[in-house]
Amino acid sequence: MADQHKILLDESEMPTRWYNIVPDLPAPPPPPLHPGTLQPVGPDDLAPLFPMDLILQEVSGERYVDIPDEVQDVYRLWRPSPLYRARRLEQVLGTPARIYYKYEGVSPAGSHKPNTAVPQAYYNAKAGARKLTTETGAGQWGTALALACAMFGLECEVWQVAASYDQKPYRRMMIETFGATVHRSPSPLTAAGRAQLEKDPDHTGSLGIAISEAVEVAAQSEDVKYALGSVLNHVLLHQTIIGEEALLQLAKVGETPDLIVGCTGGGSNFAGLSFPFLREKLAGRIDPVIRAVEPASCPSLTHGVYAYDFGDTAGMTPLMKMHTLGHDFVPDPIHAGGLRYHGMSPLISHVYELGLMEAVAIGQRECFAAGVQFARAEGIVPAPEPTHALAETVREALRAKESGQETVILTALCGHGHLDLPAYEAFLSGRMTDEAVSEERFAAALATLPAVP
Amino acid sequence: MADQHKILLDESEMPTRWYNIVPDLPAPPPPPLHPGTLQPVGPDDLAPLFPMDLILQEVSGERYVDIPDEVQDVYRLWRPSPLYRARRLEQVLGTPARIYYKYEGVSPAGSHKPNTAVPQAYYNAKAGARKLTTETGAGQWGTALALACAMFGLECEVWQVAASYDQKPYRRMMIETFGATVHRSPSPLTAAGRAQLEKDPDHTGSLGIAISEAVEVAAQSEDVKYALGSVLNHVLLHQTIIGEEALLQLAKVGETPDLIVGCTGGGSNFAGLSFPFLREKLAGRIDPVIRAVEPASCPSLTHGVYAYDFGDTAGMTPLMKMHTLGHDFVPDPIHAGGLRYHGMSPLISHVYELGLMEAVAIGQRECFAAGVQFARAEGIVPAPEPTHALAETVREALRAKESGQETVILTALCGHGHLDLPAYEAFLSGRMTDEAVSEERFAAALATLPAVP
Repeated sequence: MADQHKILLDESEMPTRWYNIVPDLPAPPPPPLHPGTLQPVGPDDLAPLFPMDLILQEVSGERYVDIPDEVQDVYRLWRPSPLYRARRLEQVLGTPARIYYKYEGVSPAGSHKPNTAVPQAYYNAKAGARKLTTETGAGQWGTALALACAMFGLECEVWQVAASYDQKPYRRMMIETFGATVHRSPSPLTAAGRAQLEKDPDHTGSLGIAISEAVEVAAQSEDVKYALGSVLNHVLLHQTIIGEEALLQLAKVGETPDLIVGCTGGGSNFAGLSFPFLREKLAGRIDPVIRAVEPASCPSLTHGVYAYDFGDTAGMTPLMKMHTLGHDFVPDPIHAGGLRYHGMSPLISHVYELGLMEAVAIGQRECFAAGVQFARAEGIVPAPEPTHALAETVREALRAKESGQETVILTALCGHGHLDLPAYEAFLSGRMTDEAVSEERFAAALATLPAVP
Repeated sequence: MADQHKILLDESEMPTRWYNIVPDLPAPPPPPLHPGTLQPVGPDDLAPLFPMDLILQEVSGERYVDIPDEVQDVYRLWRPSPLYRARRLEQVLGTPARIYYKYEGVSPAGSHKPNTAVPQAYYNAKAGARKLTTETGAGQWGTALALACAMFGLECEVWQVAASYDQKPYRRMMIETFGATVHRSPSPLTAAGRAQLEKDPDHTGSLGIAISEAVEVAAQSEDVKYALGSVLNHVLLHQTIIGEEALLQLAKVGETPDLIVGCTGGGSNFAGLSFPFLREKLAGRIDPVIRAVEPASCPSLTHGVYAYDFGDTAGMTPLMKMHTLGHDFVPDPIHAGGLRYHGMSPLISHVYELGLMEAVAIGQRECFAAGVQFARAEGIVPAPEPTHALAETVREALRAKESGQETVILTALCGHGHLDLPAYEAFLSGRMTDEAVSEERFAAALATLPAVP
């Protein structure tokens, strides 16, 4: 249809396999290292935290992994997710570009996070776990895991970064509605939390600290496991269903993207959208530019170093080679809480080093301006995280307007902003700031990098 | 597919006409009366408030009204909306009943309200209006109208019931994100508001008072019009697209409903779902029971009288024959703000008097218990309003479990509860109450009914 907005797939068209990009890359990614021995970690090192099915996915060299029937059944509550042509935004911008966005806000938790929360809960339940612990920033991940645990009969305990816990109470309420327990992080419940509270009783928290707390609790009991919402290979793997669907949907309307743009915090949404397209690019079938957008206040790809670092603040995780600002870096409490992470997924970092993708950093006020423009044109209020991708989409659409090129842009609207409305209020009332991070602060955090020969 | 969750329609299958039940009823509904002359109001009496296209729809005797292309184009941002089979809820309840729900929370505003907000903004813009005024309770309607006005270039001014304005600030923020202005009602900006504030400076407001304020402002300027989110015939007309789609969707899976259940405040969601099925019932093609569910604290159908009354508190609207608790009745500040209206749509009241539907009233704690059960099984956190329909659905599913009958239940999940999470927190923490309304309070409000011979 000439004026079609949504490109839908039937449930029967939903992909039944996740895509693992590792075997298709020209070089293998560097392995994670044990922080004591500095030797590559093996499956057994990870067994206290994760069930073996997920560990095997983490190190898999297989190109495709079948999605279990039980996971597919839950996916079908909202999947396949719609691909939209942003016709009304194109009109407002007066651009000849054709803008498509894959909308993951249709999931029950309101973001792409259930794509991995559901299989993580499934594999843990199958392996006999009783409870999962996790961290959450803005709360998208905590909500997703709480829901997935409710569906597979697991208890769920969530450490939420204090800044978000205080600023956005609705997220906590939603997590509790799904039956999980939420703690403000840093909390007095863990050694990692107490250490931070001793330094600063009013600590606003960080993802790195919340991870330390959740990992600490999981490591203490056999039947309590830990779940991570981004960064790791198996998380990125689960998210590839986004890009696999988008490939089918664009094919339905005969389009090939010139540019794929997504926001990056830990990187799972970005990888989920772009890796299936990167497979096609590596095979020479398409040639899109693939571009990550990160917040100017937490720019791990564009301002960090590529080095071995811890995934958490207390130094309890394996060492991962990634673009990092230093595990001690505590980002400003910007509104896109899901992007406030000191590092970048090792797999994305590797892809970036291989020159297969680009990255830019944008300040939050430009992002929210794009978010408001998008909301008034397309109707959907975006989460703060994908406003970063929208800001770059708007920049590119305006470049297309100047050049007259009919650029085809594909982006991921990875969540709605219903529970982030105080951020919009701050923006609309002029209270939102864009403070530059000083070079001294970056340098101080990088000085804490562990020494790896 | 045997385990299908969603029954989707393509954009090309979206109905292109609204359905007007009036010509199909065995008797015509009583006309609205001018409060001064007690004579039926004519189109000219309504012209200060509404554009002529909507007035003609209000009094139309045509069975079908074409949906303008411009309205269809906006509808397609989210329509056709999905029909879900609640398989996971059925499993949790252990019922042989098959439960279907039509989900309107996929709209940008998160409820069914844009179905009428969009055409109302369109017809007003077409007629040269500059601004629309309106009231809102929980905020669903205000959000929908703000969005529709943004899309058709109109200003929008919203009076929000004070209880909701204070309890649920996220709704105001969302309305403002779409570019509209929100006032706490009663406000000092109108004579109607000032009169209430003089009586009680801490007044928690009501829909009736907020309507008075919005009508007062609209009546003062030629290019400012008023928009109502429920109750009136043209609003119910626009909502029939819900039921028309559901008919197509159930036909796709070969199902015929035994019971249709929806929540009722002003009645637009209930009529939207049920009237197209009632047409089929009146024609003898199906025979479902059609049942409205209202809150025990505001039970206009089950506890009100069928009489001429004002639509607002200040007595500025025409007199409408409807089930009413008296226009002076201020419902308790229950969490389903969208159901806190003293009257019931005249058209639904007439259908009820004709014996074509049933009604029950349920207290809010039972409703929220059903809402939490639904959220944990199906993933979607329902708005407080449709938890009333869910509570009755659960009752009926458990009856089916006892009798062993494979009852087919169709209900409307008319909105999500993302912006109503404080209500869930109140329920989960045990702070939610179910106070019975005293007979004295009902009697006092009914004593204010206007005398109509």
